[in-house]
Amino acid sequence: MSVDFEAIVAAAARIDGHIHHTPVLTCATLDRMVGASLFFKCENLQKVGAFKMRGAANAVLSLAPQQAVHGVATHSSGNHAQALACAAKARGIPAWIVMPTTAPAVKRAAVAGYGAEIITCEPTLAAREATLREVVARTGAVFIPPYDDERIIAGQGTAALELVREVPGLDWVLCPVGGGGLLAGTALATRGLLPDARVVGAEPEGADDTARSLALGQRLPAENPRSVCDGLLTSVGERNFPIIQRLVHAVWTVPDERVIAAMRLLFERMKLVVEPSGAIGLAAALAHVAELEGGRVGIILSGGNVDLDRLPWLPAAGGAR
Amino acid sequence: MSVDFEAIVAAAARIDGHIHHTPVLTCATLDRMVGASLFFKCENLQKVGAFKMRGAANAVLSLAPQQAVHGVATHSSGNHAQALACAAKARGIPAWIVMPTTAPAVKRAAVAGYGAEIITCEPTLAAREATLREVVARTGAVFIPPYDDERIIAGQGTAALELVREVPGLDWVLCPVGGGGLLAGTALATRGLLPDARVVGAEPEGADDTARSLALGQRLPAENPRSVCDGLLTSVGERNFPIIQRLVHAVWTVPDERVIAAMRLLFERMKLVVEPSGAIGLAAALAHVAELEGGRVGIILSGGNVDLDRLPWLPAAGGAR
Repeated sequence: MSVDFEAIVAAAARIDGHIHHTPVLTCATLDRMVGASLFFKCENLQKVGAFKMRGAANAVLSLAPQQAVHGVATHSSGNHAQALACAAKARGIPAWIVMPTTAPAVKRAAVAGYGAEIITCEPTLAAREATLREVVARTGAVFIPPYDDERIIAGQGTAALELVREVPGLDWVLCPVGGGGLLAGTALATRGLLPDARVVGAEPEGADDTARSLALGQRLPAENPRSVCDGLLTSVGERNFPIIQRLVHAVWTVPDERVIAAMRLLFERMKLVVEPSGAIGLAAALAHVAELEGGRVGIILSGGNVDLDRLPWLPAAGGAR
Repeated sequence: MSVDFEAIVAAAARIDGHIHHTPVLTCATLDRMVGASLFFKCENLQKVGAFKMRGAANAVLSLAPQQAVHGVATHSSGNHAQALACAAKARGIPAWIVMPTTAPAVKRAAVAGYGAEIITCEPTLAAREATLREVVARTGAVFIPPYDDERIIAGQGTAALELVREVPGLDWVLCPVGGGGLLAGTALATRGLLPDARVVGAEPEGADDTARSLALGQRLPAENPRSVCDGLLTSVGERNFPIIQRLVHAVWTVPDERVIAAMRLLFERMKLVVEPSGAIGLAAALAHVAELEGGRVGIILSGGNVDLDRLPWLPAAGGAR
């Protein structure tokens, strides 16, 4: 399967009824602050609280019955783990999730709540990959990667597909970039319907491998990434990068303090709980008002899974950064 | 003008385009917790962050041009003040808001941001009423009360009208009760379309004058009310109470700790910022699962204006209760 605009349309049909068609909300105050018309696609209101549900549902529902019966597996301590567990449960197949010993108890509980089996390993990439290989060999489960996968990219692109179909005449679409599943899918969906629209990735300054990779013209790994955006610390994927190179207008990097300010604005002004990674699109818009002036700008709020006891503007949260 | 179902339909037509048609959201986790199908009407996503915008817009747009030209006035330090200021600005008429010296700076700034003139007075009801009379005498402005007013009741009823039209076959509609503008309007709208539906008011245990008034069969004032629900401390209104007596199935009282737990669930599970007064409907549902079991339950999340530095589950917020 190659991933293109048609693959996103097919994914949208496949996952219809398995995901929420999330609302698009607006805010007059934020419009004034940016000097543009902003349309927020609320993937924080998606099942499991993040767009990751779209890709996971598409991957799980794409499996042939003889594959699916053996279940699915991945390594993740983030939103992809919950999404895959939830999608597997909906199809009635087993899921194995490899998580590091350092994963917060609340994340383990969420995955276990969907009936997935958790396999704990040391918190290194080598241990995670070795443990995953062992699980796949033992069970016959299909590995579903978090972003470097055509089924995942196609699924994530359905958020922008809904947005662009609902809001006519967008000039810009902004979304976060970590591994690039959402950004690649967003670019394919948006440019498929609006060839002249500009798709922009928003990336933390402290995890700017995609911006650096675009500047160099080849994929660079994230080196010792540090950011309050815990969902955006991964390196851009092999399948994701060429799509981003071809279809994305720019990647704008944003310092953490601007991300936190944008996150607080979303809580205060839009009454939405958005995680730091989810607020970075608004933060990027607020840092680029000259370019966006007068435009119609779609912004994907990618997720809302945040520790409510450690909100980043509270003094007690200081240790998180 | 008398207030009845037709008045709500007329209000909905009058304020169309001046308010947000807010989304109705669902949550599988909360459905499981209550054992019913819950439909949340998100008035926290309304303009100014609360349903109060509906009544204020209806009142302001109901004024004849020769009245409107003199402007509007009220006394309030809460959401009604912001809503009236916003509605007046939209019509291009002046607004005077009497606020006590104790009103938080952030609330004064919000009202001033809509171009309203703030008149400060001592924090007593007598001082507020005297100051308001003086303002009205001086300016000729029309007093728009926060809840004890037919135009306000009709406007607030439009939230339930939208909900009942959008979600077929509701068995129950739950909403907060303070002064009773929202509850009276909700009862008129709901029972007008669904004569057999049960409308329930949710009231803080520490401000239970409506529940006590219904039990006695006559209106009692709130005596020294205390609750984390700062929007629900007022006594039920003279025009509101007979409507509530006639059309409301019950008023369920809820202790503050259950309100705070429900508020946190809405943040965590639905990714919605809801103020304590806005979360009390869910808190009441969670305390009455036996009655609601298997039903289709509409819940109005009435507002989302909350101090993000003092969320009630954080240790630092302890002094607020």
